[in-house]
Amino acid sequence: MRMYDLIEKKKHGGTLTDEEIREMIALYTDGTIPDYQMSALMMAIYFQGMTDAETFTLTEAMAKSGDTVCLDRFGDRSVDKHSTGGVGDKTTLIVAPIVAAAGGIVAKMSGRGLGHTGGTVDKLESFPGFRTSLPPQEFADQAERVGLAVIGQSANLAPADKKLYALRDVTATVDSLPLIASSIMSKKLAAGTRSIVLDVKCGSGAFMRTPEDATRLAETMVRIGIAHGRNTAAVITNMDIPLGHAIGNAMEVTEAIEVLRGGGPDDLRTVCLTLATRMIALSCKKSIDEARTIAEDCLYGGKAYAKFCEWIEAQGGDASYAKDPALFGRAAHTGEVCAEAGGYLSACNAELIGTAAMILGAGRQTKDSVIDLRAGILLLKKPGDPVEKGEVIARLFTERADTLDAAADTVRAALTFSETAVEKQPLIFAVIDNHAVFSKEEPTP
Amino acid sequence: MRMYDLIEKKKHGGTLTDEEIREMIALYTDGTIPDYQMSALMMAIYFQGMTDAETFTLTEAMAKSGDTVCLDRFGDRSVDKHSTGGVGDKTTLIVAPIVAAAGGIVAKMSGRGLGHTGGTVDKLESFPGFRTSLPPQEFADQAERVGLAVIGQSANLAPADKKLYALRDVTATVDSLPLIASSIMSKKLAAGTRSIVLDVKCGSGAFMRTPEDATRLAETMVRIGIAHGRNTAAVITNMDIPLGHAIGNAMEVTEAIEVLRGGGPDDLRTVCLTLATRMIALSCKKSIDEARTIAEDCLYGGKAYAKFCEWIEAQGGDASYAKDPALFGRAAHTGEVCAEAGGYLSACNAELIGTAAMILGAGRQTKDSVIDLRAGILLLKKPGDPVEKGEVIARLFTERADTLDAAADTVRAALTFSETAVEKQPLIFAVIDNHAVFSKEEPTP
Repeated sequence: MRMYDLIEKKKHGGTLTDEEIREMIALYTDGTIPDYQMSALMMAIYFQGMTDAETFTLTEAMAKSGDTVCLDRFGDRSVDKHSTGGVGDKTTLIVAPIVAAAGGIVAKMSGRGLGHTGGTVDKLESFPGFRTSLPPQEFADQAERVGLAVIGQSANLAPADKKLYALRDVTATVDSLPLIASSIMSKKLAAGTRSIVLDVKCGSGAFMRTPEDATRLAETMVRIGIAHGRNTAAVITNMDIPLGHAIGNAMEVTEAIEVLRGGGPDDLRTVCLTLATRMIALSCKKSIDEARTIAEDCLYGGKAYAKFCEWIEAQGGDASYAKDPALFGRAAHTGEVCAEAGGYLSACNAELIGTAAMILGAGRQTKDSVIDLRAGILLLKKPGDPVEKGEVIARLFTERADTLDAAADTVRAALTFSETAVEKQPLIFAVIDNHAVFSKEEPTP
Repeated sequence: MRMYDLIEKKKHGGTLTDEEIREMIALYTDGTIPDYQMSALMMAIYFQGMTDAETFTLTEAMAKSGDTVCLDRFGDRSVDKHSTGGVGDKTTLIVAPIVAAAGGIVAKMSGRGLGHTGGTVDKLESFPGFRTSLPPQEFADQAERVGLAVIGQSANLAPADKKLYALRDVTATVDSLPLIASSIMSKKLAAGTRSIVLDVKCGSGAFMRTPEDATRLAETMVRIGIAHGRNTAAVITNMDIPLGHAIGNAMEVTEAIEVLRGGGPDDLRTVCLTLATRMIALSCKKSIDEARTIAEDCLYGGKAYAKFCEWIEAQGGDASYAKDPALFGRAAHTGEVCAEAGGYLSACNAELIGTAAMILGAGRQTKDSVIDLRAGILLLKKPGDPVEKGEVIARLFTERADTLDAAADTVRAALTFSETAVEKQPLIFAVIDNHAVFSKEEPTP
């Protein structure tokens, strides 16, 4: 195999063979193939796309490039959930205990937040003592005993994807659908669960801006999962506006606990039940209707909340915070953004709200930034809500008073008002349940 | 300027500004922009093309990235000829003395051969003592005194192009028309002549395979030249079959001397007169008809041959070889390729003939290969010629007997025979004379 020939072939719209893709990924990971050839190939793929066969093999080659987790002992019960990333997305904290309470085994590796999106591992660190890193045996034992373990992503998980993504990130070749799909799914395959439910976010705060694009990505990922013998489903959810009211780590944990106790925002609860239903259906072999009933029973009957407390404690966290979230405390400085006129809130740009939260200290500007766990934003109004002149729309929390002005300006830029009533946006655009999705022969651009 | 933004813009079909292109070339040449970003941009340009404005600025930025030659003292008389490279292409050896004899000043930097194509500098080294490197002042003085000086390309001529071409060569991004055109023209601009005549080869032995592609490349290069104030013309010539009968350095020099003495192959003489006519027209301000008469007078009246001898001697070469080419001697071993049946020779693949000559030692497989100046091939028949069974089609010459079998096989693979008469191929497809060619607004792919 000569890398030159692969670039030339793809440039002219050809299809790479399984052997070519496997060798290419092996030689790129070990440094034999230089970055400048790989970036040229990535750009050719941006223009010419990849067939499903190519995408499946690329995903598998990247999944096998490093450590892989074996969860075979749990049979079909092991289940993972992946979100493509959003603002105020604390679903894992709610969904995982619901599914574990229902009998699924949620053994999951999660990322940290970067830029305007948050990360589950950061949120979990709001609990004093919570261990986001566990040795493999302890991870598997806890998953078996509690039905639930969430740790940070292993450094050697799909290293080929890590190296390739870093290259794509600086060569404007991220936005290729088969490359995005294979990047996400390579980590899911390596993480070893038999079932996978994907939460594909869509809108201003997400990578995919339209429901159509998000659906195409979701379908490609579901096809990849099924091709590799995983039960896979996807839910396409709205990320044009933040999910729930709280943005910021400890604040989001508090909101998740509210939902687990039967309260909390409707939109958040609805998305969580939709996701949990699919995870239970796949891991516990239930119909969608049965799974939904089980999910609601676990949530409303308190079993999910009990499982949450058990989980936090099992993983070394101080569970008294789960019982009394006031213990998280409040950031030293607060600010407000108020309505300048009466009417209706019509839009709330999720990306800008996420950016404002980052400015306040809730997120990372670079990989090395330190997060303020108590910083964040509480959105008191959501699009569709009526507002009165002077009414508080958002409260800002930070440890650094000098960030308040810039954050407030950013929140204001995120908000759009209307004099007349506006319709609420749909919350869930589509669900792709696990069924045979046949490979397409045409390359996906 | 962020290189990422330029890649993103071009990927979406945008147009880079003059400032962006200039800064990009400066930062790439000094190593600030890494290869992996540049190769991604090159691939995006392959797909999205470049406007004339972009192509002009890229050419200029690369031309100015290193040393530039100033030939202003010669006014309009300084003239260069460039061939896009072919097999048996010894036109410079004939054209340059014709034009110098007519009053033009041919001050030229030439390349070395690589792969199946030969280089003028290699051919000139067949003359013992010939100096292919001259200090700038001596180069200019000889050009003024003799009207003719040809040296090897300066190491620091258009270094941005050198670096970029090396990258394109290993990332399958060579075959982009605006990139090919700007690469060639950047060196022509830096070499400083006021007039430029381009010999764009077309066919199996050339980079451009069809007359249409070759014409598009020629038009783009002529537009670039004119945009930068150079009198520029182009001739699109056939390189589906080798030019003349001789392939190999000393053998080609001998054939060139035959033409300068009024003999030699018709096809070679015709191409040379066509090129010389344009060079004389541009540099001596003559009409095409006047220029052709002058060119023919110089060739047939012996002035061109006298100029050739003067030139070789001026540049340190032993001119007695120009008077008695038998002095070049003959390679130690010879072979033959004969017709296996009677009929007509219908095709003679130039690339394969070039490759066979390389195998015999006449060309370089890598940049560091050493050339045997006496090795090569003499084609006794050209397509269209009748052949008898057993008749010799080609004679092979080499210093290494063990190369004869492989070379003969390669020559056989290059030849196609027909039982019935075949038409001769056209020799010259088109001429683009120097006139205002207006910029196109649409990008050229």
